[in-house]
Amino acid sequence: MATPALKARRRSDYKFQLEYRTRWSDNDMYHHVNNSVYYYLFDSVVNTYLIQHCSLHPPTSPQIGLVVHSHCDYLAPIEFPAVVDLALRVRKLGNSSVTYEIAVFERGHEEVKAVGEFIHVFVDRRSRRPAKNGMSEELQKGLERLLADRPRL
Amino acid sequence: MATPALKARRRSDYKFQLEYRTRWSDNDMYHHVNNSVYYYLFDSVVNTYLIQHCSLHPPTSPQIGLVVHSHCDYLAPIEFPAVVDLALRVRKLGNSSVTYEIAVFERGHEEVKAVGEFIHVFVDRRSRRPAKNGMSEELQKGLERLLADRPRL
Amino acid sequence: MATPALKARRRSDYKFQLEYRTRWSDNDMYHHVNNSVYYYLFDSVVNTYLIQHCSLHPPTSPQIGLVVHSHCDYLAPIEFPAVVDLALRVRKLGNSSVTYEIAVFERGHEEVKAVGEFIHVFVDRRSRRPAKNGMSEELQKGLERLLADRPRL
Amino acid sequence: MATPALKARRRSDYKFQLEYRTRWSDNDMYHHVNNSVYYYLFDSVVNTYLIQHCSLHPPTSPQIGLVVHSHCDYLAPIEFPAVVDLALRVRKLGNSSVTYEIAVFERGHEEVKAVGEFIHVFVDRRSRRPAKNGMSEELQKGLERLLADRPRL
Repeated sequence: MATPALKARRRSDYKFQLEYRTRWSDNDMYHHVNNSVYYYLFDSVVNTYLIQHCSLHPPTSPQIGLVVHSHCDYLAPIEFPAVVDLALRVRKLGNSSVTYEIAVFERGHEEVKAVGEFIHVFVDRRSRRPAKNGMSEELQKGLERLLADRPRL
Repeated sequence: MATPALKARRRSDYKFQLEYRTRWSDNDMYHHVNNSVYYYLFDSVVNTYLIQHCSLHPPTSPQIGLVVHSHCDYLAPIEFPAVVDLALRVRKLGNSSVTYEIAVFERGHEEVKAVGEFIHVFVDRRSRRPAKNGMSEELQKGLERLLADRPRL
Repeated sequence: MATPALKARRRSDYKFQLEYRTRWSDNDMYHHVNNSVYYYLFDSVVNTYLIQHCSLHPPTSPQIGLVVHSHCDYLAPIEFPAVVDLALRVRKLGNSSVTYEIAVFERGHEEVKAVGEFIHVFVDRRSRRPAKNGMSEELQKGLERLLADRPRL
Repeated sequence: MATPALKARRRSDYKFQLEYRTRWSDNDMYHHVNNSVYYYLFDSVVNTYLIQHCSLHPPTSPQIGLVVHSHCDYLAPIEFPAVVDLALRVRKLGNSSVTYEIAVFERGHEEVKAVGEFIHVFVDRRSRRPAKNGMSEELQKGLERLLADRPRL
């Protein structure tokens, strides 16, 4: 499933990065970080960016991002207590939706361990439907800054 | 992303089902079950089947299943304390790998809430490489029983 | 740490019970349900009771319960894919706080696996301070019904 | 429940510290880090120390640490995306058991947010019983280095 292009991802392909420590319970019975945990990490780097660079305030913002699709390709295992670098860019930016790509690297290693994507649709907090005019200008501008220069798959 | 065929999934399309209660912490700040939680549920229904119907014993089995790809389409939200039905079938069965499809239903509702897939590659516990002859006969036979009659997308 | 009285707890000592399936990821590297997971289960049985029997609606209720203390004694391990019975009673009921006791049993076994307690202080959703008149009447009445007949430790 | 002595804990009271980022899903419906998550963090700082300073190798070590008791006092909330400092010391060191104290601080704040303890009993990996001679010398020596100078409660 993982194409050579995915395996060739490097930290420099991404515009925003965050360091995360793995947790004891991230490892499952097979002694590596469980596949589901990657999605928690994706959510964390994306929402940190939205909060710190796009003025998102999850408890009160009039627009919130709901996930309608997610996927991940796992290229090599990571084991607690590894420290990971989460690297984020935007693959597609629509009127009310955005497709993020997140890569997971391990501190001290160049090769990418996993690459995933997920799609946020920004909706009105109450109606849970996209606004007529799409996402707010703050979201649009903040996300534009993460657009990949040269999308490849 | 979610095609009409996905939205038309019903419990009767699946060969194995398990009831799961959601947990308080499954809900995130937006008051619905977080997108990552679905992957924990997928892992749970698949591994319960492998343990109870294919003789998998995670701490000692010579072959274990590693996830190399996963994805999910989210069609409608679920909220704690809902009870969900996880429905499982096999979409593709290879020599050493298997593609599962899991659908999430809410107790008391007919419409499907989410549909996901993930791919297990069965590898030797120590070398973490697929066996020359592929997965064991017990795994092969157990998984065959879940093969979808009429794969659709 | 665990007294003989704790080890003697039986399902019949509790007034509210809920069945929960364990999840694949609940098991940690030592192949049993991780100690932290018990607290997720405690939260789940307590909040299910508050929602279904005390009219709590977490996204909007004027009063919400904040945890100020929790503890647990672990008597025997549980392993995925075990099904557990969570048993709940109230040990102390104050003006604005409540001390719950939760016992964890495994389906098909009489002996208790773990016993824990936690304290909820009911506070105003906005100010996050207890109301002058303490918890609402609905909470008070609902929690009274779970009061232990004869508290023992 | 929280004594003035607990509230007075400062980073300098502890011998080992680790920085951890919170995750999106750590926040529950009340928009703060859920009480159960603290136990995941406790497990993480303790096991990182055991692995990096006491030669613990969870998949193969002849002795492993099982949790028999844990508790936590929550003094003030923390909210994603806060970065926390986990601070660790040893309160009691027995022949085969150890009582850890862990304090949670938020990056940029002096006041402690939560203080907890848990007890590890070191047991033989297979029999799951303590060794006749107690924990290994490596564990004993490593944990001695974290002993609190002047235990207070």
